[in-house]
Amino acid sequence: MSFYFQDGFLYCEDIKVKDIQDRIPNSPFYLYSLDRILENYRAYESALEGVSAIVSYALKANTNLTIARHLREAGAGATLVSGNELKVALAAGFDNKIITYNGNGKTMSELSLAVLHDVMVNIDSEFDLEHIKKAAQETGKTARVTLRINPAVDPEVHPYIATGLKNTKFGIMNERLDWYLEKIRQSPELNLVGVHCHLGSTIKKVKIFRDAMEIMTGFFKEIREKGFDVQYLNLGGGLGIDYERREKMPTQSELIDSIRDCLLDDMTLIVEPGRSIVGDAAILVCKVTGVKSNGNKNFIVIDGSMAELIRPSLYDAYHEIGYIEPVNGEEKVFDIVGPICESADFLGLDRNLPTPHERAGLVVYDAGAYSFIMSSNYNLKMKPAEYLVNDKQLIRIRRAETIDDYMRLFENDPVAI
Amino acid sequence: MSFYFQDGFLYCEDIKVKDIQDRIPNSPFYLYSLDRILENYRAYESALEGVSAIVSYALKANTNLTIARHLREAGAGATLVSGNELKVALAAGFDNKIITYNGNGKTMSELSLAVLHDVMVNIDSEFDLEHIKKAAQETGKTARVTLRINPAVDPEVHPYIATGLKNTKFGIMNERLDWYLEKIRQSPELNLVGVHCHLGSTIKKVKIFRDAMEIMTGFFKEIREKGFDVQYLNLGGGLGIDYERREKMPTQSELIDSIRDCLLDDMTLIVEPGRSIVGDAAILVCKVTGVKSNGNKNFIVIDGSMAELIRPSLYDAYHEIGYIEPVNGEEKVFDIVGPICESADFLGLDRNLPTPHERAGLVVYDAGAYSFIMSSNYNLKMKPAEYLVNDKQLIRIRRAETIDDYMRLFENDPVAI
Repeated sequence: MSFYFQDGFLYCEDIKVKDIQDRIPNSPFYLYSLDRILENYRAYESALEGVSAIVSYALKANTNLTIARHLREAGAGATLVSGNELKVALAAGFDNKIITYNGNGKTMSELSLAVLHDVMVNIDSEFDLEHIKKAAQETGKTARVTLRINPAVDPEVHPYIATGLKNTKFGIMNERLDWYLEKIRQSPELNLVGVHCHLGSTIKKVKIFRDAMEIMTGFFKEIREKGFDVQYLNLGGGLGIDYERREKMPTQSELIDSIRDCLLDDMTLIVEPGRSIVGDAAILVCKVTGVKSNGNKNFIVIDGSMAELIRPSLYDAYHEIGYIEPVNGEEKVFDIVGPICESADFLGLDRNLPTPHERAGLVVYDAGAYSFIMSSNYNLKMKPAEYLVNDKQLIRIRRAETIDDYMRLFENDPVAI
Repeated sequence: MSFYFQDGFLYCEDIKVKDIQDRIPNSPFYLYSLDRILENYRAYESALEGVSAIVSYALKANTNLTIARHLREAGAGATLVSGNELKVALAAGFDNKIITYNGNGKTMSELSLAVLHDVMVNIDSEFDLEHIKKAAQETGKTARVTLRINPAVDPEVHPYIATGLKNTKFGIMNERLDWYLEKIRQSPELNLVGVHCHLGSTIKKVKIFRDAMEIMTGFFKEIREKGFDVQYLNLGGGLGIDYERREKMPTQSELIDSIRDCLLDDMTLIVEPGRSIVGDAAILVCKVTGVKSNGNKNFIVIDGSMAELIRPSLYDAYHEIGYIEPVNGEEKVFDIVGPICESADFLGLDRNLPTPHERAGLVVYDAGAYSFIMSSNYNLKMKPAEYLVNDKQLIRIRRAETIDDYMRLFENDPVAI
């Protein structure tokens, strides 16, 4: 077990979280369980046993270098959405053959870097095709490309994280497939190796993946029939995790089993999990500053905020919240809020919790994905430290940003025009 | 004029924005007009002529050190919401006598720093009072304090930026005023110097301020009658700017005139403008990566994103969008989107714009407040550079963050527990 309670105290693997909080100078901080990350990764590997497949970790969910290295060592590929993510992936030692670069707005310099390193590049649009071609010409390389198809399957999630609907900014216009194929045929710099889609994020039903797989297999076959020796069918990521503690999420096995009969010979399946690998493998550990009431509502005020974790205010996302230690105050309904000076600054609303003492450790669960990476310096909150428990050892995998780090970038330098 | 067009090109004061874009290596970037910042500031000073008043700049809107220094030189006080903002305010040379520190979740170390520097500290709650008292005891100083009253006036704005409603996390329970006064009376470490409120942000009607002023004057008088020699009535900030280009915003004069008859002798008014000083004084300058259509919708894909400017996706905020140079393509309805891999990544929706050529300069207006400071590293986008036009001279006031800056904080270091 990665996170569990013993004698009223929360543990991460073998370490009592309160001991960490007492030991380290900064609060809040992120704490990851390597066991959980690797378990989640291996669940994909097991589910795919006997299938020609790449489990390509979506770095955008969490771009910590140490976490990326561990996943690379475990055998993962990497899915990128920016040139900077490529730099982190290279620093983490990922094999360029199993790196995929997706995105609707890749710039020329990012594409040149990607083509130079011979990673797979997803063609998202007509202009993107032209840019990839130009990058290949300029670097003197052949670009391995895939086509981002829009399967128009509703992922049934928050509109901000639905990415495979007809009306999103992602992917080619499927009706123009022949135009793309003809362009690629005429471009020796482009080597079409597969098709790609990505439906969205926090998906809770395997049927959604199954529907997309059927559509994508159709495109895959059509492209083969038109004379392209494509190998990869990239189904993207998007499997949800059980934030709400209410419903059973599909397992990695259930996801793969649901699409297994669509797999073809000589096809390599790529899946791009991010959240379902790191999402439930971390917690944000905060301290209670105080408790207040305005007569109508009760508030637990903590030192964590929307600056460290914006998912609740940006996506109306639910994160489970509890304490890391015994708290015996009267149970009430609380909003859990941070110190940021606006009403968007909440981590949880209307939660039944015992009234905490000051400086009690409060934990926000499932903070491994789209959490640290979306942090800001709003109200000059500095980015928190990240810690990882690895085999009974606590490892600091990113130090806390300091106000000196932040102020070092200020200048007052004339620029000649 | 700070931002204007000449021969189809956008200028910031005397400098053609396209020349800046051609000259500097990074895109996107923030560009500020010092003239506009100081004009906005001076409009408050003029409106307050003859009134004993402090115009206290709300640093949270924009915490750039150079901008803070210019406002300090112009005579502004500073309003803070964190200990780190206090560090910036001190670095910018603000007079501690006219620094106010607000917030619902101030930590002990922040409070100690504030009391040590003898800035005014707002009491937000019962626990906050106890913490301020403790900070005063520990530092051996007397804390100058104000009481954050909740006037319960509806600011008629997005719920995320309404802060003076009955149900927000801010302020004391007014029914408990006597408890607070008694506590303060019994605490020689606490010197009550005034009352404070803050209604919210982007407020469009002076009547809202007027209503609050009447309520606050009532509290001010009541507290005086109870024997406290309070001097400051801090009405907070919140005046809106004309993001939508549709309605006339109240001017600084209209705001002050609407409350003038509530002012008392021996009362010093504090106002805490942030957005109305810096909001319309900056633009985010981006480049067009390409244009695409999915059959239903048209997209202008730019290199700016929700990572640099999250207001559109977080608050459904409208920012005017245009080009910095002549663009003559067919006019269509576009969504203006960035390269971030999710559907929340838009800067504007359904905008009528001519179809741009690639690498055309695209500008997002009114990006001076709650813009740079809320930026994140999502998708490993680095924080953009900030430039200021000061008397015909372009000044880089913050350099662009680099991936090396970002990666420097990664570690893999065991921590003893």
